[in-house]
Amino acid sequence: MSALPTEDEVRAYAKTLSNWGRWGKDDERGALNLITEAKRKEAMGLARNGQVVSLAWDIDPAGTGPDVKAQPQRYMLRTGQGATEGEHAERQVACAEFTGLVFHGRRITHFDAPSHIVYDGKMYNGHAGHYVNSEHGAERNAVTNARGGIVTRGILVDAPRHRGVPWLEPGDGVHRDELEAILLAEGVTVGEGDALLLRTGYGRSRLEQGPEFEGKQSGWGAGCLPLFKERGVSIIGCDTSGETHPSGYKEFRGPIHGIGIAAIGLWLVDNLQLEDLAKTCEARRTWEFALVLAPLPFIGATGSAINPLALL
Amino acid sequence: MSALPTEDEVRAYAKTLSNWGRWGKDDERGALNLITEAKRKEAMGLARNGQVVSLAWDIDPAGTGPDVKAQPQRYMLRTGQGATEGEHAERQVACAEFTGLVFHGRRITHFDAPSHIVYDGKMYNGHAGHYVNSEHGAERNAVTNARGGIVTRGILVDAPRHRGVPWLEPGDGVHRDELEAILLAEGVTVGEGDALLLRTGYGRSRLEQGPEFEGKQSGWGAGCLPLFKERGVSIIGCDTSGETHPSGYKEFRGPIHGIGIAAIGLWLVDNLQLEDLAKTCEARRTWEFALVLAPLPFIGATGSAINPLALL
Amino acid sequence: MSALPTEDEVRAYAKTLSNWGRWGKDDERGALNLITEAKRKEAMGLARNGQVVSLAWDIDPAGTGPDVKAQPQRYMLRTGQGATEGEHAERQVACAEFTGLVFHGRRITHFDAPSHIVYDGKMYNGHAGHYVNSEHGAERNAVTNARGGIVTRGILVDAPRHRGVPWLEPGDGVHRDELEAILLAEGVTVGEGDALLLRTGYGRSRLEQGPEFEGKQSGWGAGCLPLFKERGVSIIGCDTSGETHPSGYKEFRGPIHGIGIAAIGLWLVDNLQLEDLAKTCEARRTWEFALVLAPLPFIGATGSAINPLALL
Amino acid sequence: MSALPTEDEVRAYAKTLSNWGRWGKDDERGALNLITEAKRKEAMGLARNGQVVSLAWDIDPAGTGPDVKAQPQRYMLRTGQGATEGEHAERQVACAEFTGLVFHGRRITHFDAPSHIVYDGKMYNGHAGHYVNSEHGAERNAVTNARGGIVTRGILVDAPRHRGVPWLEPGDGVHRDELEAILLAEGVTVGEGDALLLRTGYGRSRLEQGPEFEGKQSGWGAGCLPLFKERGVSIIGCDTSGETHPSGYKEFRGPIHGIGIAAIGLWLVDNLQLEDLAKTCEARRTWEFALVLAPLPFIGATGSAINPLALL
Repeated sequence: MSALPTEDEVRAYAKTLSNWGRWGKDDERGALNLITEAKRKEAMGLARNGQVVSLAWDIDPAGTGPDVKAQPQRYMLRTGQGATEGEHAERQVACAEFTGLVFHGRRITHFDAPSHIVYDGKMYNGHAGHYVNSEHGAERNAVTNARGGIVTRGILVDAPRHRGVPWLEPGDGVHRDELEAILLAEGVTVGEGDALLLRTGYGRSRLEQGPEFEGKQSGWGAGCLPLFKERGVSIIGCDTSGETHPSGYKEFRGPIHGIGIAAIGLWLVDNLQLEDLAKTCEARRTWEFALVLAPLPFIGATGSAINPLALL
Repeated sequence: MSALPTEDEVRAYAKTLSNWGRWGKDDERGALNLITEAKRKEAMGLARNGQVVSLAWDIDPAGTGPDVKAQPQRYMLRTGQGATEGEHAERQVACAEFTGLVFHGRRITHFDAPSHIVYDGKMYNGHAGHYVNSEHGAERNAVTNARGGIVTRGILVDAPRHRGVPWLEPGDGVHRDELEAILLAEGVTVGEGDALLLRTGYGRSRLEQGPEFEGKQSGWGAGCLPLFKERGVSIIGCDTSGETHPSGYKEFRGPIHGIGIAAIGLWLVDNLQLEDLAKTCEARRTWEFALVLAPLPFIGATGSAINPLALL
Repeated sequence: MSALPTEDEVRAYAKTLSNWGRWGKDDERGALNLITEAKRKEAMGLARNGQVVSLAWDIDPAGTGPDVKAQPQRYMLRTGQGATEGEHAERQVACAEFTGLVFHGRRITHFDAPSHIVYDGKMYNGHAGHYVNSEHGAERNAVTNARGGIVTRGILVDAPRHRGVPWLEPGDGVHRDELEAILLAEGVTVGEGDALLLRTGYGRSRLEQGPEFEGKQSGWGAGCLPLFKERGVSIIGCDTSGETHPSGYKEFRGPIHGIGIAAIGLWLVDNLQLEDLAKTCEARRTWEFALVLAPLPFIGATGSAINPLALL
Repeated sequence: MSALPTEDEVRAYAKTLSNWGRWGKDDERGALNLITEAKRKEAMGLARNGQVVSLAWDIDPAGTGPDVKAQPQRYMLRTGQGATEGEHAERQVACAEFTGLVFHGRRITHFDAPSHIVYDGKMYNGHAGHYVNSEHGAERNAVTNARGGIVTRGILVDAPRHRGVPWLEPGDGVHRDELEAILLAEGVTVGEGDALLLRTGYGRSRLEQGPEFEGKQSGWGAGCLPLFKERGVSIIGCDTSGETHPSGYKEFRGPIHGIGIAAIGLWLVDNLQLEDLAKTCEARRTWEFALVLAPLPFIGATGSAINPLALL
């Protein structure tokens, strides 16, 4: 079917698909620039029925497993225990905690800012890699460039539904021709500012079989990258971390992040929970909705844990 | 003007305004139960113009000042520094960080779940205080009860606009009669499931004069609590942490949290940035909008840092 | 051989072996009170040959395994990467990191202060349990009671050497009669202020077979507790966390910590690395040495990660 | 008095005082190589009286002030609160906490490993700076090179005693001629492997006036560096972070760390509490003692918080 582009072709995307300079040499917002007031208005118009669907997995401080590199932390500073005891007795206790996490990785639903990726020493729009440094974090391309929040049209690209399988097997990617076939079947035409959310079905597999990762996962094929650029997609998301692993290339293991973020200026949403949304879309016979993203504006961060909401 | 209720009267609210048992003895969602599909649909209908306004302050890991008890932490795990050096040379670097914070307090925009408050040894709906404990965090009334996200009608209660002052002075609260006068002037009738966001103008003061806290702040007066219950308000927010300090009572320092959360089952949004929204509402001559809250579903947490969005 | 005392007998130790009040009702130092200047002088006299042996395992931030509940954290704040790049170029870089850990558990060599254990609602010397609380940490019996550092006589109790086995099997404890036999064979008489360090050989097993913990480990038998009290032992240590698991009792799973710390006021050193010391003692034909403990005086902490040194 | 060497002269020390290659091209222990078994034996011989003096300040998680950049963290995982309540009732509770800190800086008593300093892109012994990186920490010259613990002769260089003042003023350094005069007056001859601990009296100032730092502090003058090399000093310590600030040079702000660590291979102990030791030395009329350093062997760390002990 879809011939995977060669490694040389994908490496060439770094130039041919580049949006560097398109919105000025200082730009740090990348493809989010394509989301206009008109686009937001169009998206809001899709929210007609009063339905809200979360696309996030719970964040579990007890979580371990093959997809966890760093356990989220929750340490209580004040609790309701022994509230009436001794010197510490208080009629009203304000319970509080410290929470900490590494949102990047394969477990936590999160949003990637352009500072997440340094490719050949540079970030999106040519900002030097050293602008992400230990002392100050991301001094360019940080998540705070999306502090205002995002509302745009979301499109669910439901691959296992289209194939008639419960989920795509790890290692099996969705290539450009299949992507176009799914969009056609769903009756959607992709336009500027859209968010494409790929369901590989890993969420269903995870719910039924538990988390797994042994170096293989489903995701976007690298040949979809030109489509993202041509149609003016702003955001891509996936129920895995987005890459097909293995990528099919000897050395280029992460072209979706490498080209998508650093060249095109896409913002990515990784590890989405798309099972509830898939059922809702099926029931409503529509695969488009208003997507609301409200990242935490943490200064210097390369992204944010996020609870994306689909309104329809 | 508005006689502040006596301390005994406010203490009595714990019984008279209680929603315990109203949605079943196991309920952990409190006043969020009042946000129906119809309410969400009504709210979505207010989002007509493609405008999105964030109500969050940036989270600053370098932040110190009178309103900071615990500095947010951002520690980089991978950076773009020296990407081409020695053994560590890599063509593509995925920058990542650990972020951690205590969202409760006076600085970070955050959402309070009912587990935030233990009053007389119990939380909202009678859940025992020890269900918020050091080992497991909030085992009842956690923020995950709002994991599905919230869309409802938001109403900006703009007190300094109504008074014709730049901001309310620290210690000066908004009492029930003033609240009703503002709502009347804004042409809004509060109904079930609404979110009331009080602007005291502290945000403007903070922008112009820097953060301050010397034991005094503006906020809701305790006499507003019966109104919240009567009208079926689900969420209250404020550009301070919500309480008027001092409260006017000898021993009851936090009645808005104590009664509002533990008895009524309200969810609170503290430390909102309402300056942009105030300007937008003024320009559009409307003080209602679709409010979208997408808290992080962190298991066992008593709330979440949040980037609330107003759609209008 | 050694009849294990019954559960009732061990529960009774809470009274019969108690040192509560012995050094005044406010005392927080417990059995450390038995280490006198004369004892320290005696201990220093054992350090004759210029030999120093560390009794600590490395702390590994990448460590996982059956004995790890919480990974130690090391996050770099400044590194030597890209030191000459762009705006961040500096001729001299002071590299620095955040380090964090939970020292209690089965992996990290650490020192237990009396605040580590609350038994029947109380700590050593009758201090109420609520003096260890979420807000302030240990307000009584904290590790800062040993801020001055400890030098005393250490005695290696080398059980596998005495038995002629490479290590004791998990679940197999050292009971009082065996302890006395080992001390006799080593030619040592235990006196006031001594530190007894039990080698079960788990360290050797760990080096040869990797870390393991499946609910069983070797350690002290509960019948040794009266000996600790009678002889005036100040500190006990072990190359496991000290308890024999299973303890042999239906409900009393941790008598060494429960009675040893809360009743007798012992300070414990857990997870020692005793393999180097065992070889040194064998070579020198002596099992006594100067033990130096230099805990970090962290206010409110229930103990400290530690690098114990044997000088001989 | 002592002419401060010129900036060019001090820059030249990087070559003229270098110990690179002296102990082999792979060496990571630097001047610790000069501490021999004979030296340790000599040091142990100074511990005659059974006296132990800690040289550490308490670590305060509530600490703020001009010398604090990052608050130490102590988060309780288990407490003694409400130990008998509800489902969480337990007869024996093992209280535990997470502790975390940044030990480098001006507040916490700590030990600097050679990986702390990158000078002109390289660490001690020519190890490339990128061997201290975000992902792995210090892959060369880490604190684990001192995992075995250190015992050597310590010498207190008591400058305010010699001058007859309560403390040296911030900005006032101790130069080579004064150092030699103090040592002469104290009757000590510095030899290979010694640890020189400089008392500027800042500890007394801190106890009497509170912590302060406004860009000025007392410390070693750069002209002492040749003496450290000539005499074979292994460790230098100070009751400030060791540098005189301002250094007297236009661009070379940290020559004690830059030359001392990166060229000579010294290990530094910063922020010592020397007030107790000063009184003890005065009382005993001796300024030499056995110094015991037991750093935590944290893999990849550039140093360690430490509780140094003087035995005499």
